[in-house]
Amino acid sequence: MHAVEVSDQIMIAHSFRGEVFGPAQKVHGATFVVRVAFLAETLDPHGIVVDIAGAHAVLKAALLPLNYRNLDELPQFAGVNTTTEFLTRHIFDLVADAARSGKLGRDGRELKALRVTIAESPLARAWYEAPLW
Amino acid sequence: MHAVEVSDQIMIAHSFRGEVFGPAQKVHGATFVVRVAFLAETLDPHGIVVDIAGAHAVLKAALLPLNYRNLDELPQFAGVNTTTEFLTRHIFDLVADAARSGKLGRDGRELKALRVTIAESPLARAWYEAPLW
Amino acid sequence: MHAVEVSDQIMIAHSFRGEVFGPAQKVHGATFVVRVAFLAETLDPHGIVVDIAGAHAVLKAALLPLNYRNLDELPQFAGVNTTTEFLTRHIFDLVADAARSGKLGRDGRELKALRVTIAESPLARAWYEAPLW
Amino acid sequence: MHAVEVSDQIMIAHSFRGEVFGPAQKVHGATFVVRVAFLAETLDPHGIVVDIAGAHAVLKAALLPLNYRNLDELPQFAGVNTTTEFLTRHIFDLVADAARSGKLGRDGRELKALRVTIAESPLARAWYEAPLW
Amino acid sequence: MHAVEVSDQIMIAHSFRGEVFGPAQKVHGATFVVRVAFLAETLDPHGIVVDIAGAHAVLKAALLPLNYRNLDELPQFAGVNTTTEFLTRHIFDLVADAARSGKLGRDGRELKALRVTIAESPLARAWYEAPLW
Amino acid sequence: MHAVEVSDQIMIAHSFRGEVFGPAQKVHGATFVVRVAFLAETLDPHGIVVDIAGAHAVLKAALLPLNYRNLDELPQFAGVNTTTEFLTRHIFDLVADAARSGKLGRDGRELKALRVTIAESPLARAWYEAPLW
Repeated sequence: MHAVEVSDQIMIAHSFRGEVFGPAQKVHGATFVVRVAFLAETLDPHGIVVDIAGAHAVLKAALLPLNYRNLDELPQFAGVNTTTEFLTRHIFDLVADAARSGKLGRDGRELKALRVTIAESPLARAWYEAPLW
Repeated sequence: MHAVEVSDQIMIAHSFRGEVFGPAQKVHGATFVVRVAFLAETLDPHGIVVDIAGAHAVLKAALLPLNYRNLDELPQFAGVNTTTEFLTRHIFDLVADAARSGKLGRDGRELKALRVTIAESPLARAWYEAPLW
Repeated sequence: MHAVEVSDQIMIAHSFRGEVFGPAQKVHGATFVVRVAFLAETLDPHGIVVDIAGAHAVLKAALLPLNYRNLDELPQFAGVNTTTEFLTRHIFDLVADAARSGKLGRDGRELKALRVTIAESPLARAWYEAPLW
Repeated sequence: MHAVEVSDQIMIAHSFRGEVFGPAQKVHGATFVVRVAFLAETLDPHGIVVDIAGAHAVLKAALLPLNYRNLDELPQFAGVNTTTEFLTRHIFDLVADAARSGKLGRDGRELKALRVTIAESPLARAWYEAPLW
Repeated sequence: MHAVEVSDQIMIAHSFRGEVFGPAQKVHGATFVVRVAFLAETLDPHGIVVDIAGAHAVLKAALLPLNYRNLDELPQFAGVNTTTEFLTRHIFDLVADAARSGKLGRDGRELKALRVTIAESPLARAWYEAPLW
Repeated sequence: MHAVEVSDQIMIAHSFRGEVFGPAQKVHGATFVVRVAFLAETLDPHGIVVDIAGAHAVLKAALLPLNYRNLDELPQFAGVNTTTEFLTRHIFDLVADAARSGKLGRDGRELKALRVTIAESPLARAWYEAPLW
């Protein structure tokens, strides 16, 4: 299996509901370093998995509505804990839509899976990986 | 598949038996940066894989008996080469017991697998990954 | 000149006033990886600049009131922009007080300067360095 | 599954054919940080996946013909785009041959798979993973 | 002294003349991770050293003519070895001009010095630091 | 001021005498990532501070007697605590001798200072910087 992975970053605020979160129940924030890996069995005729500039653009578009925002105030996240785990899935869904619809310069059927990784600090990260089809 | 990974570190001494180890047959040491990833198909109602503070605590407990020690002197390692590979499995077993018994704030059955990674230097690392059930 | 540097991290929210900050005028957040370097001309009789466990403890104490907080709500920061630059100086002042008063296991006069570095992301960081006396 | 991964680096020039590559159609270059992971179900009697010095040597031998070269001028790459993805496969093939033939100090049948990762910058990397048999 | 440092990257090809360069006399390439630090004694009324978005823009403008190019072919570098050391000074000169002329949103006289660092690999880097006035 | 910095690593064991060291009084170990920076006011006619291959060789020679050793057993360290701080100075002295005597491919008088940095973990490092003349 081949893979290409690109990276970008956002700076967000949020808070969590539930005693399990301890001090993170208060409004705090994070720098999220976000990576998306695109997996394919074969390379295209140019010798690539996807157009890497296109991959960066799709990731940036998925992150734009979150960057420099308090996620607690965004309607799309009303009533949910925007944990690092939750956000890996949220970004997966957005990038997967773009990948399936061929926005990455390749027939989406040739892309097999995505993995979205968010590092919230040097000591903790989360990822979500799933097939595209 | 969702995953959450936490990191900690230890500083240990040890030596190896076997010509394949070359100069590492002498007593030397390492800073081990240890990461444990917890894998689950679903998030819990709080939107997490495991309680991240609990994950850090379980990892720290597994590392405590090793930190600042000469592993050659520890009875639990008598007669074995405490290679990076061996230690990934050793830590896996300890964290897996905690995970299976629900010490991470979630029914252990909902956790599917663990991966333990040890970076011994910027140039070399090892990992061990296996299902929990 | 000798130096020892220790590192810790916090996750905070805040917002800035001033058009120069663009989208960062909204409430957002950051993971701050904070390092403090202690500089001395000579090592003490044990061969160290400062007790490294003590250095970690002093840094942690300086960061504790900020961690998992919205800095906009803290009375000690009323009316100021808690920029990365500002916070390097804020932490400097707290650690410098501890260093001057001998809390690092060494006559404070033997410590010459401090440097506090905050990395807010892989792409941007700030530091403040000044003599202690 | 156990794994051991070693790392090395090369500095190369090359150019790509195809409008999808934009400015990278011109001769440019890259520092490639290359990692090879060896996967095995079991450790050998010494407690290792492979001899780590041997793994470094095999990787270095695979990289030597590429280091400090313009890949456009190498006959083995005539007519192909030497993308990061392509090179992960190229290195895989060379290291796989060495692994299968027992050059890593272990019966090649006991090694199950390889993964070759190339980081071309802090923002982009590619990998190729496949079974050895 | 306060400092703010921003980072960007380029991918270039080049070759060197002189036996001291060994295999690097051939056309090869590098990913250069470039950081520029702006030093000032005081913060401005907003609590910053310079506008960080402006700093990123000035750095990007300095790097644009080099990115994805074979530096051997650029007229501004005719007859010189474009070593990492040389390039730190080249970028210093361009960013210093912008800083002195107030393009960073602050009277250039309030900026005291710059430091340009280029990491060419995990194992080697160079920097150039000098006063602005 | 120009600088070039190269990096290498060693894996050592040792122990410390003195209650201030707490658990590090026992035999333990560390991976030391060692960097040496060479500082000069001017570049040589080739456009470099020092021959970077020569710099790597000098650093490697300084580290060789320490690598894969228990420093407690080395006669040159009898009666001293081989702290990270102490070792930065030890390596400084060895590399400084080589630099002063012209072993780095340049009249030693043109090199102004050295800085030796040892990272013992992601959370702690030490450095020693001093003029060469």
